[in-house]
Amino acid sequence: MKLHDYQGSSVLITGGLGFIGSNLARVLVEYGAQVTLVDSLIPKFGGNPYNIFDIKDKVTVNVCDVRDPFAIAYLLQGKDYLFNLAGQTSHVDSMSDPQSDLDINTASQLSILEACRKNNPSIKIVFASTRQIYGKPDYLPVDEKHPTRPVDVNGINKLAGESYHLLYNNVYGIRATALRLTNTYGPGMRVQDARQTFLGIWIRMLIEGKPIKVFGDGSQLRDFNYVDDCVTAMLMVGASDAANGKIYNLGSTEVVELRKLAEVLVSLGYGGVYEFEPFPLERKVIDIGDYYSCFGLIARELGWVPKVGLLEGLKKTVKYYQAHHSYYW
Amino acid sequence: MKLHDYQGSSVLITGGLGFIGSNLARVLVEYGAQVTLVDSLIPKFGGNPYNIFDIKDKVTVNVCDVRDPFAIAYLLQGKDYLFNLAGQTSHVDSMSDPQSDLDINTASQLSILEACRKNNPSIKIVFASTRQIYGKPDYLPVDEKHPTRPVDVNGINKLAGESYHLLYNNVYGIRATALRLTNTYGPGMRVQDARQTFLGIWIRMLIEGKPIKVFGDGSQLRDFNYVDDCVTAMLMVGASDAANGKIYNLGSTEVVELRKLAEVLVSLGYGGVYEFEPFPLERKVIDIGDYYSCFGLIARELGWVPKVGLLEGLKKTVKYYQAHHSYYW
Repeated sequence: MKLHDYQGSSVLITGGLGFIGSNLARVLVEYGAQVTLVDSLIPKFGGNPYNIFDIKDKVTVNVCDVRDPFAIAYLLQGKDYLFNLAGQTSHVDSMSDPQSDLDINTASQLSILEACRKNNPSIKIVFASTRQIYGKPDYLPVDEKHPTRPVDVNGINKLAGESYHLLYNNVYGIRATALRLTNTYGPGMRVQDARQTFLGIWIRMLIEGKPIKVFGDGSQLRDFNYVDDCVTAMLMVGASDAANGKIYNLGSTEVVELRKLAEVLVSLGYGGVYEFEPFPLERKVIDIGDYYSCFGLIARELGWVPKVGLLEGLKKTVKYYQAHHSYYW
Repeated sequence: MKLHDYQGSSVLITGGLGFIGSNLARVLVEYGAQVTLVDSLIPKFGGNPYNIFDIKDKVTVNVCDVRDPFAIAYLLQGKDYLFNLAGQTSHVDSMSDPQSDLDINTASQLSILEACRKNNPSIKIVFASTRQIYGKPDYLPVDEKHPTRPVDVNGINKLAGESYHLLYNNVYGIRATALRLTNTYGPGMRVQDARQTFLGIWIRMLIEGKPIKVFGDGSQLRDFNYVDDCVTAMLMVGASDAANGKIYNLGSTEVVELRKLAEVLVSLGYGGVYEFEPFPLERKVIDIGDYYSCFGLIARELGWVPKVGLLEGLKKTVKYYQAHHSYYW
């Protein structure tokens, strides 16, 4: 990774007060970048000003919504990099309010790309996409050639948002790379409820001494990336022109059943219990069953591999919320 | 086909004054359906009141835009069938005005489906999708399992619109089928320019005695469906519950090079010449090369096969515009 690329560079992060955005900002500050964070701070979304408590004097924060095309067009001016992470992430909310999901995950992406095309065509964009766009896997692990058949509104809209990025790369030469993230976890994630990841609410329950609720029999397989590994991948693709126009999965070699994950969590030394519960109907209808990613493409082409093991990552995460939970719920 | 299903039924067609919508309306009137046509009559789109000159007293016309959610929700009430054909079809326009394409081809589709879910969940929907969502083929003929990698904004937005239909079928039981149309031609198509199909402008040039312009060397392969065959497919999937939640390609066994097509056109007896011309840049960047569909799935499952040969269809089409061109440009 040519990390010196970021020194003195001007970087915009949408969703910058969110989970991944704030962790990315921390590393970019360390690398000497000038970082501007855009966040809507919509209460049910992932943004939380506390996420940057330790770097708040070293970044510029601009509170606005990616649905505000004028603000975004202004903020994009002169930027070398855009880490485009803002999004509506709740699958269930995308079903109850599909129009807002469309506005944020699709329409705003188009207006961001149009702003780049018109005013800053030399910017490099890293887009945070999601494994959700694959839908129910035909085979495992899921690689980038797997058909995209999203099973909820969020997946459909994120796929369109991702496709625009590739299109603007291919047609207009606006350099862009999409990373299809799997379950990412770590300090700074939304833990108030399950909107960003079920792991969030599990950790809250653990710390509150309430039972973790495992839906169904907990046999679903999932893979997880600790946020530092995800941030590294973003910085690598951002600094690589070989990644332009590409889509890469992230993923992990550690694939676990959800009930096993619950077991690990309650064995970390912070107490807690878990219990099984029937799948809520609104989740059952959009559940994708087992899922884990093949991350071989980014490993081969850019040398990215996840480095933080699940046990270590979970320990760090629970420890963080143990100390800082008053800022998160 | 259980065509008696349509007798006495209440049918809404969006894009009803357009090319395919008006031809579909004609057959539905013949079958004894009560037909309401919705059309925005946006000048650059496909709607033309003259398309229904012979049935205008037998249908109800409501001029409004699918972007008007209140009008559409009202018109959907009590309908048995929705043939959802309204769309922005120009690939080039989708690049110069992506937001309008998104509003029409994606956002409006979501609001139509939400209106069905809330007010008329027993409706059956047939959605007119497009081969454009496949992008540049990996193999030929392209079947429904081919990856979807659209190469223009129109393809991305139509794919999202199609995906919503399948999702609402699967999650909410709103019965819906998507037909991925290939190049459809015949009386009633837009011929003023190339916005709907290049065949339109070719036929106009032919009748005006001007040279037909073949881009590049004209070696690209394409398949074509005469509109009557397309209408038959729509009526078949509309009447079949086995088609619910399915995606079907349409296509033809006659696959021709574009220069061959131009040759056939000028040999029909209406005069005309053709000439080669370099690809305009705005088309070159989104061109998909050779394309033709495999329509084996709908042939096997529903018994649909195209019946009108290319020569016969072209003759009928040119004859129609010879007689009626004053209403089309």
